[in-house]
Amino acid sequence: MTTRIERDTMGEIAVPAEAYWGAQTERSRQNFKIGGETLPAPLITAMALVKKAAALSNAQLGRLPKDKAELIVQACDEILAGKLQGQFPLVVWQTGSGTQSNMNINEVIANRANELAGSPKGSYQPIHPNDHVNHAQSTNDSFPTAIRVAAVCEIKQKLLPAVSRLKDTLQQKSDEFADIIKIGRTHLQDATPLTLGQEFSGYVSQLDYARKRIEQALEGLYQLPLGGTAVGTGLNSHPDYAKTAASTLADLTGFDFVTAPNKFEALATRDAEVFASGALKTLAVSLNKIANDIRWLASGPRCGLGELYIPENEPGSSIMPGKVNPTQCEAMTMVVAQVIGNDTTITLSGASGNFELNVYMPVIGYNLLQSIRLLADAVASFDEHCAVGILPNHEKINYYLQHSLMLVTALNRHIGYENAAKVAKTAYQNNQSLKQTAAQLGLLTEQQFDEIVKPEQMIAPN
Amino acid sequence: MTTRIERDTMGEIAVPAEAYWGAQTERSRQNFKIGGETLPAPLITAMALVKKAAALSNAQLGRLPKDKAELIVQACDEILAGKLQGQFPLVVWQTGSGTQSNMNINEVIANRANELAGSPKGSYQPIHPNDHVNHAQSTNDSFPTAIRVAAVCEIKQKLLPAVSRLKDTLQQKSDEFADIIKIGRTHLQDATPLTLGQEFSGYVSQLDYARKRIEQALEGLYQLPLGGTAVGTGLNSHPDYAKTAASTLADLTGFDFVTAPNKFEALATRDAEVFASGALKTLAVSLNKIANDIRWLASGPRCGLGELYIPENEPGSSIMPGKVNPTQCEAMTMVVAQVIGNDTTITLSGASGNFELNVYMPVIGYNLLQSIRLLADAVASFDEHCAVGILPNHEKINYYLQHSLMLVTALNRHIGYENAAKVAKTAYQNNQSLKQTAAQLGLLTEQQFDEIVKPEQMIAPN
Amino acid sequence: MTTRIERDTMGEIAVPAEAYWGAQTERSRQNFKIGGETLPAPLITAMALVKKAAALSNAQLGRLPKDKAELIVQACDEILAGKLQGQFPLVVWQTGSGTQSNMNINEVIANRANELAGSPKGSYQPIHPNDHVNHAQSTNDSFPTAIRVAAVCEIKQKLLPAVSRLKDTLQQKSDEFADIIKIGRTHLQDATPLTLGQEFSGYVSQLDYARKRIEQALEGLYQLPLGGTAVGTGLNSHPDYAKTAASTLADLTGFDFVTAPNKFEALATRDAEVFASGALKTLAVSLNKIANDIRWLASGPRCGLGELYIPENEPGSSIMPGKVNPTQCEAMTMVVAQVIGNDTTITLSGASGNFELNVYMPVIGYNLLQSIRLLADAVASFDEHCAVGILPNHEKINYYLQHSLMLVTALNRHIGYENAAKVAKTAYQNNQSLKQTAAQLGLLTEQQFDEIVKPEQMIAPN
Amino acid sequence: MTTRIERDTMGEIAVPAEAYWGAQTERSRQNFKIGGETLPAPLITAMALVKKAAALSNAQLGRLPKDKAELIVQACDEILAGKLQGQFPLVVWQTGSGTQSNMNINEVIANRANELAGSPKGSYQPIHPNDHVNHAQSTNDSFPTAIRVAAVCEIKQKLLPAVSRLKDTLQQKSDEFADIIKIGRTHLQDATPLTLGQEFSGYVSQLDYARKRIEQALEGLYQLPLGGTAVGTGLNSHPDYAKTAASTLADLTGFDFVTAPNKFEALATRDAEVFASGALKTLAVSLNKIANDIRWLASGPRCGLGELYIPENEPGSSIMPGKVNPTQCEAMTMVVAQVIGNDTTITLSGASGNFELNVYMPVIGYNLLQSIRLLADAVASFDEHCAVGILPNHEKINYYLQHSLMLVTALNRHIGYENAAKVAKTAYQNNQSLKQTAAQLGLLTEQQFDEIVKPEQMIAPN
Repeated sequence: MTTRIERDTMGEIAVPAEAYWGAQTERSRQNFKIGGETLPAPLITAMALVKKAAALSNAQLGRLPKDKAELIVQACDEILAGKLQGQFPLVVWQTGSGTQSNMNINEVIANRANELAGSPKGSYQPIHPNDHVNHAQSTNDSFPTAIRVAAVCEIKQKLLPAVSRLKDTLQQKSDEFADIIKIGRTHLQDATPLTLGQEFSGYVSQLDYARKRIEQALEGLYQLPLGGTAVGTGLNSHPDYAKTAASTLADLTGFDFVTAPNKFEALATRDAEVFASGALKTLAVSLNKIANDIRWLASGPRCGLGELYIPENEPGSSIMPGKVNPTQCEAMTMVVAQVIGNDTTITLSGASGNFELNVYMPVIGYNLLQSIRLLADAVASFDEHCAVGILPNHEKINYYLQHSLMLVTALNRHIGYENAAKVAKTAYQNNQSLKQTAAQLGLLTEQQFDEIVKPEQMIAPN
Repeated sequence: MTTRIERDTMGEIAVPAEAYWGAQTERSRQNFKIGGETLPAPLITAMALVKKAAALSNAQLGRLPKDKAELIVQACDEILAGKLQGQFPLVVWQTGSGTQSNMNINEVIANRANELAGSPKGSYQPIHPNDHVNHAQSTNDSFPTAIRVAAVCEIKQKLLPAVSRLKDTLQQKSDEFADIIKIGRTHLQDATPLTLGQEFSGYVSQLDYARKRIEQALEGLYQLPLGGTAVGTGLNSHPDYAKTAASTLADLTGFDFVTAPNKFEALATRDAEVFASGALKTLAVSLNKIANDIRWLASGPRCGLGELYIPENEPGSSIMPGKVNPTQCEAMTMVVAQVIGNDTTITLSGASGNFELNVYMPVIGYNLLQSIRLLADAVASFDEHCAVGILPNHEKINYYLQHSLMLVTALNRHIGYENAAKVAKTAYQNNQSLKQTAAQLGLLTEQQFDEIVKPEQMIAPN
Repeated sequence: MTTRIERDTMGEIAVPAEAYWGAQTERSRQNFKIGGETLPAPLITAMALVKKAAALSNAQLGRLPKDKAELIVQACDEILAGKLQGQFPLVVWQTGSGTQSNMNINEVIANRANELAGSPKGSYQPIHPNDHVNHAQSTNDSFPTAIRVAAVCEIKQKLLPAVSRLKDTLQQKSDEFADIIKIGRTHLQDATPLTLGQEFSGYVSQLDYARKRIEQALEGLYQLPLGGTAVGTGLNSHPDYAKTAASTLADLTGFDFVTAPNKFEALATRDAEVFASGALKTLAVSLNKIANDIRWLASGPRCGLGELYIPENEPGSSIMPGKVNPTQCEAMTMVVAQVIGNDTTITLSGASGNFELNVYMPVIGYNLLQSIRLLADAVASFDEHCAVGILPNHEKINYYLQHSLMLVTALNRHIGYENAAKVAKTAYQNNQSLKQTAAQLGLLTEQQFDEIVKPEQMIAPN
Repeated sequence: MTTRIERDTMGEIAVPAEAYWGAQTERSRQNFKIGGETLPAPLITAMALVKKAAALSNAQLGRLPKDKAELIVQACDEILAGKLQGQFPLVVWQTGSGTQSNMNINEVIANRANELAGSPKGSYQPIHPNDHVNHAQSTNDSFPTAIRVAAVCEIKQKLLPAVSRLKDTLQQKSDEFADIIKIGRTHLQDATPLTLGQEFSGYVSQLDYARKRIEQALEGLYQLPLGGTAVGTGLNSHPDYAKTAASTLADLTGFDFVTAPNKFEALATRDAEVFASGALKTLAVSLNKIANDIRWLASGPRCGLGELYIPENEPGSSIMPGKVNPTQCEAMTMVVAQVIGNDTTITLSGASGNFELNVYMPVIGYNLLQSIRLLADAVASFDEHCAVGILPNHEKINYYLQHSLMLVTALNRHIGYENAAKVAKTAYQNNQSLKQTAAQLGLLTEQQFDEIVKPEQMIAPN
């Protein structure tokens, strides 16, 4: 491999000749051969947005010559356009501030900008990675800013729309199933009836709340640390810079970013990320309930509950011919397990900051963005490949409804809880119907029974 | 022990003669000898409130004779007044719906009400635990309602006030320390300066956000499942009952309870509790940062950082005479670890519901209320026994400030990042001051240095 | 309340006149009004054992006069005999070393010993809590020693025997069910058959491994920190003391305690507890599988899988008469959720030590001992009130077996996977039997089918 | 893109013409567009080993023609040699059994084997993916077998060697630092002295135990599910197949694989993986302690504890010139947070199996292998780039030792705990030395003090 020699404050180091990255990136590449997880793509994009916003703001405030700013913006735009991929080789498991990744993008932008200006890579003329690209920034404010920008974009552009679509699908199912009366189940045991539409309305409600909770969590993510520089004081930045940069980022993305009112909190803690992860985890918990219910209701085809049909998407078994499995539910519940584990990682990371900086930035960003992406994708996949195709098995649903003993609950107000219990227990022991048993016990005539025990009247207050 | 014989739908069982509880409670006592953790007191209180509200509502809606309702209310008021303690012997580790605990309070109320009416315990005349005390209720709606009522009361009455008091204390410290310039620390390494007041302002900000997040989480807890009865349909309840009962509970407590718009979600999921636990966990994470910072800054007295003094409350060591330890910080961080673990328990429990009911109610209630109580108490204790007494060690703070190399950052805009780095590194290697070094390297005169490097100008944008 | 005035190194403090505890306990009572969780009883017992062993060892090694040692031992024996209950009022949420609880027992022993010697409480003559009771100890070695002693005793005396009993019960069921062929289920979907005995043999195997894993974890808990004193060096202890004290504890308990080879590790880390919690958590995971399987197989009675009957122990619903629920399974799964959450707490606590001491001792002890106790009790309860009474529902089991489509798997080696799949799919679509379909498709005669598809030959390699 | 048409039991589907994968892989590619995490490379390798061992065993037992087996083995060897990369495009988030990934490798092997035999891709002649490559296997036994094979290989080949190397490095440091007496710290507060070598010996001990715990966990991973086929019965496999295949895998890898004694446990649970993750998590906890201690002891350079020097590997800050940070410690502690979160995911996944199969296989495999890899790499990186370069700062260490007040503990046995406390407290208040104070208080002469208080005699029992 051809190399060029670069220098940083630590001395010389050979860098691949073609690379846009420089000395500090190269040091990190060599010093952190840990795992293979590079920073997620949305985070690279967000870092480019932050660098662009900083350059524009610094220029606007007279702290950076317009021509320099323009070169920087041009290089950023190339990154945003998907060029320069492969120039961000650093892994998550580096310094806890993300300094090397911040320098990575500083160096790539500088080298590309200089190239555009006719200077060779490594010249750092006219654009210097620290003095110009990183102007009025520290990793400590720009890297967590990028995490928030990335998280907001992913949530608003991917996760919330996917959740809305699944909610709409389930709402439609709930409407379609409004008149299908089925047996309820509590403790996995037969209970009083409800409609299949009501059952699905619970799922719709869960997703409604999920959206609201995530939007509450967004409030913290909108607040950008940028302008705090090294320790929150804003040293080396223009007094109007923090506000200008946040507003520029809002313009560039279309989202409601503002400058964080207290930069000390914004650098030293990741509380907003911990809370956001809690909201994502709550969505995961909701999805677990939905996916589990559906796979259980679709269990069978002959030896399970079998109240629902779900789409058959692929052969289910490499050894059992003809088997079909609830694979979308399984992908979903595995994502749920991951998101809950990621929440533990984020919580532990968020709890471990000291003094002016939390140094678990990359691992927080990695887990937060993975949770968002996995949830968004799994919800979309579940919607498209499972939820839209759910159909009721009327025969099974009716069979259960007719045979359940818990219709006896309708008798409570007429013969009292204790007599009603006697009816249910006797019917169960004798393998009889409730009606027969009630009559035999002399508690009600069959006619009275029929007037009282009407499933269609047991699905609402009365 | 003298006993009386009671009957329930399963047959006869001997109950301690003096006990107000009845057959079903007794069965649970015998069948669940697991651990010793009984339901938390605020949950018993909340259950009494629910029973009272139900009786009042049923009477108002003509479903329960006024005289019966009055007897029930009287018994509830006795529980609320702290009488009848010791009548709730059941442990958390019972049926997952809390049915036995719901029956426990039904039985206690019935027996006490009947006693007030002149009937002996066990007669269940004129008040029957199921038909009257539990009227228009199922455990499935009333028990989770009680959990939410208890959680809201504890949060509003204990946790949020304690958080506010600590925030006020820290705000006062932040004000007092506004002019104390100290060295910042990032990565545990010396960084640029800030004021001690700024550092504390970050803590204040954390607690401000914590309050807001918890209030967002309260929205879900205000929504009461009551009126859903067995599976969410409201079977056996008056059509206006759910609304009336919620509004009665709002009146009785003074908090903003409403009836849950979707009772299927409200019974089958504990998503709101999972989200609330996420908010509590985020507060825990914030408190971990604060307690850790303070114990580190107070470390020493001679071999630590020593920038702060904290109150000496008790001898610190059974072997090392004269030792004083940051014990309030330690109690706090242990509470934090507990709250984070409780969040795992609540998450797992919330994720594991099936169909019409989540059957992890008692364990969710137990953990949620423990988290709230521990946080409230630990915050109050930390405030009273530690935070109010924090004092700065001016001598140490100044010493560090004068010796830190990171004041060099102020030179960036004057001699560039790379030259500034050379000054810092050379000064470190030669164990010299920055000023000396900068002059020796010919980058600045000592006078120029003094004009640029002024800590008091490094604590804000410039 | 009458009080007496005590003094410690911080000055005077009023202590309840009747209390055996002294000044330092009283300070902690007043300074840590957090929650209500006092140290678990087995930990108090273990602390008394440690104090007794230390006194005996110090006397044996000539570091403590025999008569003083005898007085201390006498007081310890009273604690071990269950006297002096109520003298240990301190909560878990105190200093992270447990110093106040160590001083609590030092003070109680000293005051009781002095009383036995005719001196009043508070005199600390002839026995001083630090100089004699705590001789050659620090909280830093004696408190974690007590945690290990308590954990080992609870595991060996309660948990492992309970696990063995449940394993025996399930083994007996497995034997009884050896000839009951039933349909298997994978992905909740019908699969190839196995015997009910085989299914239960998996549970037996899980518990076998659980015992082994816990015994592996015991190895770390047998290693006692005692003798490390304040920081691991053993300062102020006799060179033979650590070994002697461990061997005395082994004698007193009958368990294989040894002195930890490296006292720095033994004080500064709680790795052995973290690993032990991991083993307990793994048992919890196993129990979750067992309890879940059983409640699902017993689901119904008419609208579930219904392959098993489990004992009916109590009325299941306050509103649905005659309902019976899998309550022991639910108690178990709630315990599982708690143990998994406790593991998070212990992990976080274990990860947070610094330098010569981990200061999360009380919270680690509390959670570890709660996990052990809950598992032991829940396993015993599940065994007694559920497992022993499990019975098969032959009718349901046979019905499913006869109707399942997955018997088709036996055809793979005869007509190939793809043809076999065609048979299964066609039978499902036409709601026919496999035999009919195979014949209609011309792949096999009915006679050939009968010769190949024999469930009793599908339950082993062939 | 050119495609070819393939068929499976669900019908036709277009597959990229060049792909070695087939219909079922293609369906999964299209149905599971979730995240981007493909199966980890060591798992693909392990699957190839499993397929090879199965073919060899089936041939040996006469169930597969030798020539077919040979073709399969040849294709497997190509995968093992690193050819056919890019042929395994499926993500973790698929069916919970891993069926599609099992079919992926079945298809790739079949297509490559057929190609070697002169047949085109998609012909599935002479080798059929199900009937031959998957012969005597189900995904349900072969996929979890591959996970265990992969985990064992990674642990034995990468993790344990890395841990050993770090242990050796720390042992060497411990030896080198054997005579450096330093102040101990408990509760972050000054405590009695120990040697720096003793402090490091604790780390060595932690890693010693870590290795032992992981080896205990390996016992479960050595037990292979292979031979259980679909539900654990071994249907469609030769009676000697399970044993033969396990022994073949032992031969192929050099590790102690055996066939799992109970295949029902081996398919339906992942308990061994949960326990193994617990052991990995315990290692993570140990590493957290080590990395934290080292970064704190190296904190500064001028405003921290500063007792250690660690290597300076890269510029630490993009804004603060000359800053050097403990980046290897930070990478390590982020890895720790990840491993602990992964443990939550694995625990939750392991707890969620039903009946004959756990359907969280891919997510368990992904997290387990990520934990192993990250730990192995981070330990190696920490060793190479940090631990080997640790040096003591003698000046700082001595300064603290001389000034600490906790040397007073040596006086306990001479003047009693209470008098000793008075000396320490008075010295602290008056900012004096202990010796001065003791003399002023008339408790000891300066000469007596010097005879008793010798740090070099305070580092062992005495």
